[in-house]
Amino acid sequence: MSVEIFFLGTNASTPHKYRNLPSIVIRRKGLLYMFDCGEGAQYRFLRSGLGVNKRMHVFISHLHGDHVFGLPGMLHTFSLMGRREPLFIYGPKGTKEFVKCVLTKVPCGIGYSIYVRDLEEGIALESRELVIKAIRAKHTLTNFAYVFEEKPKPGRFDREKALKLGVPEGPLWRKLQYGKAVKSVYGTVVRPEDVLGPPRPGIKVVYTGDTAYCERVVEAARGADVLIHDATFDSEKARDALETGHSTAAQAARAALESRAKFLFLFHYSSRYSDLSELLQQAREIFRRTYLSEDGLKVEIRKKNGSVYLLFSEYL
Amino acid sequence: MSVEIFFLGTNASTPHKYRNLPSIVIRRKGLLYMFDCGEGAQYRFLRSGLGVNKRMHVFISHLHGDHVFGLPGMLHTFSLMGRREPLFIYGPKGTKEFVKCVLTKVPCGIGYSIYVRDLEEGIALESRELVIKAIRAKHTLTNFAYVFEEKPKPGRFDREKALKLGVPEGPLWRKLQYGKAVKSVYGTVVRPEDVLGPPRPGIKVVYTGDTAYCERVVEAARGADVLIHDATFDSEKARDALETGHSTAAQAARAALESRAKFLFLFHYSSRYSDLSELLQQAREIFRRTYLSEDGLKVEIRKKNGSVYLLFSEYL
Repeated sequence: MSVEIFFLGTNASTPHKYRNLPSIVIRRKGLLYMFDCGEGAQYRFLRSGLGVNKRMHVFISHLHGDHVFGLPGMLHTFSLMGRREPLFIYGPKGTKEFVKCVLTKVPCGIGYSIYVRDLEEGIALESRELVIKAIRAKHTLTNFAYVFEEKPKPGRFDREKALKLGVPEGPLWRKLQYGKAVKSVYGTVVRPEDVLGPPRPGIKVVYTGDTAYCERVVEAARGADVLIHDATFDSEKARDALETGHSTAAQAARAALESRAKFLFLFHYSSRYSDLSELLQQAREIFRRTYLSEDGLKVEIRKKNGSVYLLFSEYL
Repeated sequence: MSVEIFFLGTNASTPHKYRNLPSIVIRRKGLLYMFDCGEGAQYRFLRSGLGVNKRMHVFISHLHGDHVFGLPGMLHTFSLMGRREPLFIYGPKGTKEFVKCVLTKVPCGIGYSIYVRDLEEGIALESRELVIKAIRAKHTLTNFAYVFEEKPKPGRFDREKALKLGVPEGPLWRKLQYGKAVKSVYGTVVRPEDVLGPPRPGIKVVYTGDTAYCERVVEAARGADVLIHDATFDSEKARDALETGHSTAAQAARAALESRAKFLFLFHYSSRYSDLSELLQQAREIFRRTYLSEDGLKVEIRKKNGSVYLLFSEYL
């Protein structure tokens, strides 16, 4: 099992010299899931080699300019570069109106289908292998954190046990693997759990967009492999954080600790910080497995035999 | 006399690895005049040290996404960074609707005044020292080239001649300098042209946005100090240029030659070109004083005793 996270932009509100406005992409089995689309996202997207014609879902956390003003340009560029695959956009109420108005007022001659859906809290997207949920975080206006979660895979199939219980190799094995009981050659009923190991949990990534420390986020991030959390301020600015609906690095760490997430990535830094080491230190005092997200960082999450590995690389 | 040009982005349509979407800023006496605002303009604007709280006029050439999708983010960032100075936006019909709809759908809480005016061809802005005109260029939809022109300064005042003609130093001299006739101590009428040298022409810069070779642009660029001209393609792609409403580098050079501009800057390159030397060569065969514009290039134009000097520097 493997999922890649591309950090396209990691700064908050206004651009920093080395950090663009927020946007990340999760790639899984060739499909792309973008979370937020700050201005400049398309620049790094194109450099990352993600491919303009992949099936793609874009999730907007909230309608503040720094999280959404990269969207029109990206839609436009995709079209000019010959995209044909449809593109799906999700976000809080108003997202649809925004996309519609921009594409009407500046006619872009988009050559592919765009579907936009205004979300309520709950399931935003569900497929056979995956579910993405919108969770209401704590900000100055409606802001969704998103839970990206692979569905558990069925446990390993015990071939020897199946033969021993009188189920011969063939279509009956497939039935058991799909969770259905079958009849053995001895006339007994064999249930899936008789021949399957425990289900193997998928990879879970939680992205907060903008949020103050929020119990709903902690609850939603329960057991996440990676939590990407607002870390706008250092601990001395806890009051600014609260007033503006953001978190300190330490609060992000607390959220990771309490949700028992495996790894934390600090994200969405105030432009006042050029050196982020203090934020990292303050978070690590609370939650050791904390990392700094950075523009151009790619993190691959691999899960094997219940263990989680992170592989870091730079795509620029 | 001096005017600075900052090239913020010089590419066409879609981003190139080393070139952002089109935007330039002319700075004159501390005031800023931006032409087009492609996505990412705010990033380079902030790096250039132009200052977020300067009086600023933004001129949009046409409503194609690559020329205008940097505007919402820039307006938003200016506000977050505490801008108080009003900002003026000009563009073809539809510009006002676009700005209004974006700022309504994504409420940015803009803390300064924004005035938007949809233009017809003709004078877009006129002050005591300056006039900016919109010229209809040749593109696939309404596209304005802009002529930025300082008004001529009155000629040098000949103090000795004035005294000789019986006009003593004082308020009468000022009157003559402001173009009014006065009466001398001998009772004769002294006219401004008796004591003033020939008027000294100001600096003239023409920016085309997107255009095929266009006689109206050539006419408007007559005698310009600097012509910044669409040079999307090389000569082999003249047909593509014509079909898409763009120019080849050679056509840009022809426009410079025929308008008797002093210097030409190629601008708005197709993403297919990483190496621009061929475009430069093709233009220089026709018009020797051709330069490549580049992201991060700053060009200062100085005019003294009828001569024009260019000073090149990089602001990044």
